[in-house]
Amino acid sequence: MTRGRFIAFEGGEGMGKSTQARLLADALREQGREVVLTREPGGTPGAEAIRSLLLAPPGEGWTLEAEALLFAAARADHVARQIKPALDRGAWVVCDRFLDSSRAYQGVAGGLGDERVRALHDIGSAGLLPDLTIVIDAPAQAVAERLSRRDGDSSDAIGGRAAEYHASVNASFLDFARSEPHRFAVIDGTGSVDEVHRRIVEAAAPLWAAS
Amino acid sequence: MTRGRFIAFEGGEGMGKSTQARLLADALREQGREVVLTREPGGTPGAEAIRSLLLAPPGEGWTLEAEALLFAAARADHVARQIKPALDRGAWVVCDRFLDSSRAYQGVAGGLGDERVRALHDIGSAGLLPDLTIVIDAPAQAVAERLSRRDGDSSDAIGGRAAEYHASVNASFLDFARSEPHRFAVIDGTGSVDEVHRRIVEAAAPLWAAS
Repeated sequence: MTRGRFIAFEGGEGMGKSTQARLLADALREQGREVVLTREPGGTPGAEAIRSLLLAPPGEGWTLEAEALLFAAARADHVARQIKPALDRGAWVVCDRFLDSSRAYQGVAGGLGDERVRALHDIGSAGLLPDLTIVIDAPAQAVAERLSRRDGDSSDAIGGRAAEYHASVNASFLDFARSEPHRFAVIDGTGSVDEVHRRIVEAAAPLWAAS
Repeated sequence: MTRGRFIAFEGGEGMGKSTQARLLADALREQGREVVLTREPGGTPGAEAIRSLLLAPPGEGWTLEAEALLFAAARADHVARQIKPALDRGAWVVCDRFLDSSRAYQGVAGGLGDERVRALHDIGSAGLLPDLTIVIDAPAQAVAERLSRRDGDSSDAIGGRAAEYHASVNASFLDFARSEPHRFAVIDGTGSVDEVHRRIVEAAAPLWAAS
């Protein structure tokens, strides 16, 4: 049995990650593959329970350190209970956000530092990395318009932060992609949903050509 | 304003930690000090919410790694929101379990390793250590009798584990005390509650003599 492939979608708010993850999962299923479409934080009962704590903190809100530990705990459960078993049985995993979101949000924007975020990932999830991380990138203006059309989704503890914070996050994803080009593909997020989907399929094609 | 002092109680199940922590807190209050009596996991709204997840895991139960991250997240919240502010305003903090429980349960008995548990504590809580850690020690036979008289308290995810696991945990606390004698006092837990309390007061007296 060949090990499956692990594809993560990253990018700031309003880049269309969830939609594009679903479309890629559909395309892979049409190739006859078993596909696990999942998201972070969440994806398993344990990680979804941690997600609830992250999005609606009891008390005064989480400190940066507690938040990073909770994301790492949710990811550890998700990797051990869902992602790794799926890959081991040959399924393909498509995940909406993964480690690089923690690196961008807590590591860079929050200021915890990349080394600490990576240390938590090494301890929690044995440092598992996606085979391909798709970063969807679009001009700030297009994203602001898209976000303004969303209902209710920007009022939680993570999504409701300031525009400057989101700009910093977007810049981080592009930095990560430049630093590790072998595991990233930066996709132009402008144009129609179908156009972006076609760009993603083209970027991911080497994965199935090789498996 | 003099910084307060931080005293933690450690030891296996059934050693009388909670009772003795309360009695020491009472004795410190009789000296006219502000005392914060608290416990782990828990002590703040955020940490108590994480405690609930730890004691009644959703799904299949936490992996060792996720459990260690959740304990560290709860501790980070507890330290930032309660312990550190209390010490800074001059209060004394008496805590039922702290870092050394994670070292004993997840680090040694679970097998995660001391280095990883300490790394999580460094990231989450800037490595804060108690000024004095009181380890209550008693022969296994006495503890088994005490635990058999408890109602309902040994059926949760942590307390319900096998006897061998608890023996390993007890041995770990004694090892820690031997390795860092300056921050530990090992107290004989046999005899009456009052006898044990008097031993603890004697062991802690140098802290208030010096403050």
